[in-house]
Amino acid sequence: MNQARGAREAGAVYRRELYQQPETLAALAKRGEEFGALAEQLRRSRSRLVRLAGHGSSDNAASYGTYAFGLIAGLPAFRDSISLAVYYDTDFDLADSLVIALSQSGRTPDVVSYLAHAASQGATTLAVTADLDSPLAEVADACVSLGTGQEEAIAATKTYTAELGILALLAAHLAGVGERYASALEEAASALAAWLAAPPPALEPLAAALLESKRMMILARGPEFATARETALKLLETCRLAATPLTTTDFAHGPVAALDPDFPTWIIAAADATLPAARAAAERARAAGCSVIVSGTGAGALAEQASVLLPSAASPEPLLGPILSIAAGQLFALALARAKGLDPDAPAGISKVTLAP
Amino acid sequence: MNQARGAREAGAVYRRELYQQPETLAALAKRGEEFGALAEQLRRSRSRLVRLAGHGSSDNAASYGTYAFGLIAGLPAFRDSISLAVYYDTDFDLADSLVIALSQSGRTPDVVSYLAHAASQGATTLAVTADLDSPLAEVADACVSLGTGQEEAIAATKTYTAELGILALLAAHLAGVGERYASALEEAASALAAWLAAPPPALEPLAAALLESKRMMILARGPEFATARETALKLLETCRLAATPLTTTDFAHGPVAALDPDFPTWIIAAADATLPAARAAAERARAAGCSVIVSGTGAGALAEQASVLLPSAASPEPLLGPILSIAAGQLFALALARAKGLDPDAPAGISKVTLAP
Repeated sequence: MNQARGAREAGAVYRRELYQQPETLAALAKRGEEFGALAEQLRRSRSRLVRLAGHGSSDNAASYGTYAFGLIAGLPAFRDSISLAVYYDTDFDLADSLVIALSQSGRTPDVVSYLAHAASQGATTLAVTADLDSPLAEVADACVSLGTGQEEAIAATKTYTAELGILALLAAHLAGVGERYASALEEAASALAAWLAAPPPALEPLAAALLESKRMMILARGPEFATARETALKLLETCRLAATPLTTTDFAHGPVAALDPDFPTWIIAAADATLPAARAAAERARAAGCSVIVSGTGAGALAEQASVLLPSAASPEPLLGPILSIAAGQLFALALARAKGLDPDAPAGISKVTLAP
Repeated sequence: MNQARGAREAGAVYRRELYQQPETLAALAKRGEEFGALAEQLRRSRSRLVRLAGHGSSDNAASYGTYAFGLIAGLPAFRDSISLAVYYDTDFDLADSLVIALSQSGRTPDVVSYLAHAASQGATTLAVTADLDSPLAEVADACVSLGTGQEEAIAATKTYTAELGILALLAAHLAGVGERYASALEEAASALAAWLAAPPPALEPLAAALLESKRMMILARGPEFATARETALKLLETCRLAATPLTTTDFAHGPVAALDPDFPTWIIAAADATLPAARAAAERARAAGCSVIVSGTGAGALAEQASVLLPSAASPEPLLGPILSIAAGQLFALALARAKGLDPDAPAGISKVTLAP
């Protein structure tokens, strides 16, 4: 792959897809009729519980889904265990469950097995995928297209935010507030486009400053914990940086002791009830001599504690914040990879990546 | 705290508690009558779902609980969101749920709030804690003592394995196989004592070899994923090493691309259906030039792929494997901390750790 690159800019494919996000999100917002009909169909199943599953970025989207369904639709949701179904063949009665499998390709074998297994246990099943002809779509009762086309870059960007948008819209339609969320998503898409056109100037210098860093803590609480996990995954995949995502409370519970000035700490702050916990974490990291990066829709409130501020675009609905706040992590991963001489589009060893067993 | 240490050996408290584990596990195995009565009480609540919550090591024990309840008792279980209850005050009907909160001290404020909130939503609540007079015990319908006394070391050891033992025993009693698991746990306790008396000789040289490492991947699948998470937490807390726990499938899904020879990879292998996935991960890490450490009850089967083999004691029941396999991570964290000149009993900045907000 490296040979085929020619003079192409490192990470050009990744960057192109990253910048397509406002467009794919705006397109999602226009699919109100489809989401309305789907919600109607799902309501008939009388599911009382939502189980979400996926790998990598899709698993991070599932983290977000817990909050989207819980807070928008009042439906308990959780990240389900794939391995219990696939490796241990558990036999649960899932008649009360809506099971949502997230997979960009729709071809990850154990996600397909997981959904087929859930269907055989009586669950109502939904596939969220870019490919409606995939094996995953085939085994599901209903499907939602990501509307992204096939993602070319190794590291997911537009499929991740599309998954977030879909989970939010679905929860909103189930709750009867689909239109409100659709127009908020459209507004969020515009806000993201404006943000991407003029990202925080601190971003590039930050990449230069963290060139030698091999580790980082990434902290958040609530819906933004999905952003912490996804930012960590981007930095691991594209920059070989071992970033540890932790909730602010888990951080305070022990890992705070690990901090030294060589342990940059990134906090994704939401402008909601979790803000005091984010502020407390920022203060502790600062006291330990760490560089404290703050992003998120609540970043402004932590200006005093931050070494570097990367404020996100303002969110028209609090629950759409994670769709906007991941952009800082996505762009920083690109900047850091380039600064390190790595190409996000051609990571070493990628020829060895095949479909997971 | 550093001033008060005097000539005491670094990590002496942590080591003492680590070596108390066989004793606390054997004592658990003798509480059959108590677990039988508790299972009887819980059965009457007709819970169809188990929700588990805790922070840090207790959250890792909750990962294990998903498998203990799922595989031993046939009960769906999952790690619940604490923040949905504590920060966002969700209003779910939890009449169908057994909610188990795990907290060594029983004083972590948001775990106490979480359990009180669950009780107000109709759940049957259980506290698992070292302190039966704690606020957590007070809000719960039923309590199980860890039987460890107060843990003195900052980094949990014996309370973690006690939590695992309690979850396994409780699931076993719910399934009517309490006696079988109690005698298996007693056997496991003896096996652990023998292992601790003569740990793998490769352990100390490994600490010397990884002295400069700042990051690591720790891989497992199924019940041993709890071990991967807990090993990562121990290394972060006591050695400032940023270890990323990943399932073998998530690893193959992207992060494999991050590997370079400076990214040691630790695989916890179980002798069950997940072994081929562990072997595939080991082969990929090996091909990327990484040092591949293999522990767990299935380590022997991966001798060919391993750079360093740290086999765990043999488990009398597959589901008790994680109780035995965490010991390698616990001991290695001590060895690495000492090699680095760090004291697990007096981590920097610990005076700043107060009860989480």
